[in-house]
Amino acid sequence: MVPRRADRARRGRRRRRRPACRGASQSGPRALRRIPIAQLRQLPSAHGCGPARRARGRAHRTGRHAVRIGVAGLGLIGGSLALALRGTHEVTGYDTDERARAAAKADGIRIVTRLDELLPADAVLVATPIPAIVPALERLAPHSDGAVLIDTGSLKRAVAEYAARAPAATRIVGGHPMAGTTSAGFSAADPSLFRGRAFLLVPTARSDDAAMTVAGAIAGEIGAVVTVCSADVHDRAMARLVAGPLAAAAALAVAGAQAEPLLRSAGPGFRDSTRLADTPADLATDLLFGNSADAAAAIGSIVEGLTQLRDALERGDREYARSFLRAARSVRSELS
Amino acid sequence: MVPRRADRARRGRRRRRRPACRGASQSGPRALRRIPIAQLRQLPSAHGCGPARRARGRAHRTGRHAVRIGVAGLGLIGGSLALALRGTHEVTGYDTDERARAAAKADGIRIVTRLDELLPADAVLVATPIPAIVPALERLAPHSDGAVLIDTGSLKRAVAEYAARAPAATRIVGGHPMAGTTSAGFSAADPSLFRGRAFLLVPTARSDDAAMTVAGAIAGEIGAVVTVCSADVHDRAMARLVAGPLAAAAALAVAGAQAEPLLRSAGPGFRDSTRLADTPADLATDLLFGNSADAAAAIGSIVEGLTQLRDALERGDREYARSFLRAARSVRSELS
Repeated sequence: MVPRRADRARRGRRRRRRPACRGASQSGPRALRRIPIAQLRQLPSAHGCGPARRARGRAHRTGRHAVRIGVAGLGLIGGSLALALRGTHEVTGYDTDERARAAAKADGIRIVTRLDELLPADAVLVATPIPAIVPALERLAPHSDGAVLIDTGSLKRAVAEYAARAPAATRIVGGHPMAGTTSAGFSAADPSLFRGRAFLLVPTARSDDAAMTVAGAIAGEIGAVVTVCSADVHDRAMARLVAGPLAAAAALAVAGAQAEPLLRSAGPGFRDSTRLADTPADLATDLLFGNSADAAAAIGSIVEGLTQLRDALERGDREYARSFLRAARSVRSELS
Repeated sequence: MVPRRADRARRGRRRRRRPACRGASQSGPRALRRIPIAQLRQLPSAHGCGPARRARGRAHRTGRHAVRIGVAGLGLIGGSLALALRGTHEVTGYDTDERARAAAKADGIRIVTRLDELLPADAVLVATPIPAIVPALERLAPHSDGAVLIDTGSLKRAVAEYAARAPAATRIVGGHPMAGTTSAGFSAADPSLFRGRAFLLVPTARSDDAAMTVAGAIAGEIGAVVTVCSADVHDRAMARLVAGPLAAAAALAVAGAQAEPLLRSAGPGFRDSTRLADTPADLATDLLFGNSADAAAAIGSIVEGLTQLRDALERGDREYARSFLRAARSVRSELS
């Protein structure tokens, strides 16, 4: 682990910017827009602490403003964010779990032992498990004093709903780095986790332009590609891109048990296809039930496609199957 | 490409044996057994050409017998086999496609321009597309003169059925290296493709112990882990491990199109889950229809699992979903 940590620290400090111009290309004017790259060039400081602090600690290494960033939840995502941002900014971390705090501290992250102590800050990233996100925002909001609160969960409607009833001065932006793995915990954190990945931003009733710029700048600094969309568009799409694949991986794994005694001979196809089935069951359950209507619809779409293929097999219709498989391949080819 | 080829040649000659003792552990006495490692130590030579040829060409580099191996079909699998075996044996390749022959020749593989010219040989590996396997065996068998004919397709019943009616002196073994990728063609061939992967062997009515030993030795020499099973067990299992995941990947990709405008933001979960949807449509169709009854049953199992999860979502039954996801995770954990 020692060499890996050393490498991690090195990579955490070497920042490679990617252009923000690689979002989805077929954006509707309201559903989706791109943050102009010029807006991402620097982080504004809600507390004017940037220039004054630039000469201190790690934060003086670039010409960019160093700001105070709190990270609530030091698992895979929060830990990776903390490691990726601490090279440029004053990063403080918090986790309910003492072992996570200790691990992050051992890796050089400044730690506090209460959520509230992440404030004052310029931004707080809320990277807790999904059910804890809104409660964390509720606790932080009354004391946020201009700090931009950015969650990093994979569902956005609940955040948008909370924002609509949050104190008027609160600034809340929904954020979703598309960089999950089935690994969990700070030990799996990696500052390069977000490089080249999408970072979806969802404006809420408590998002202003400056708040969006802060969120976009943070996403840009960790190497992610910023795309902005509404909570509805986000959650419907995620049902197809996250919940559906998770359910399919689980169903494939359960069906795979019938491959005994050859299950362990499975090749890379089965292994990749079922990788998401290795997601911890609590996390997977939260993900499916956090947006159960869209998840059920996404599963329904998959069942429909599978049923069409099965029917084609049963009636010996090679042409139908081939055209279905061709269509699937053309969708897949848009990803690479 | 030049450095890669150089590397390929180097890797092709450096052989690393893996023990043959890592087959599936819950083997039934008839369905599945392991070839004793002692039997794999050397290739017997059907034509007595081993010792005499050992001093010539590449084949003199080890203490093992060098034998004549033909490879019919120089795509991903056949090309990788040829590259992996040419360091130790006299490998001759054939493909119906002139470009594949030229590419293999440029990479140092001895080439013939007619299938029959792969004979005489000690073994011929038939790595053509699935529909061409039995026709190739039919053409080779009458002239095989003791050569062990080993196919490498992902379905075995048709091979077993042909073997039952093949000339009495023919020796035919079904082989299936579990190492496919969605890449195709000789340009994707890699001599290390099989290392640590399962290589399933299916005895036929024309397999004797010596033929099984030859097939097992070849599999062992390319670094694969040998497991023996019947054609029925093989094809039923492959429906779960290959056809089902292929169909699920296609259905996921088609459903994923509904994630527009965020499809291109898909994270690694969706990308891995749909990787098999990138399989060329003709290959995928052959694979599904080569064993349509088992493939339809496998798809039915996946539909059943997905429907259970959807029903749990619709009735708000978190406990059922969690137990399903836990069961899936425990199956998946047997693979790693």
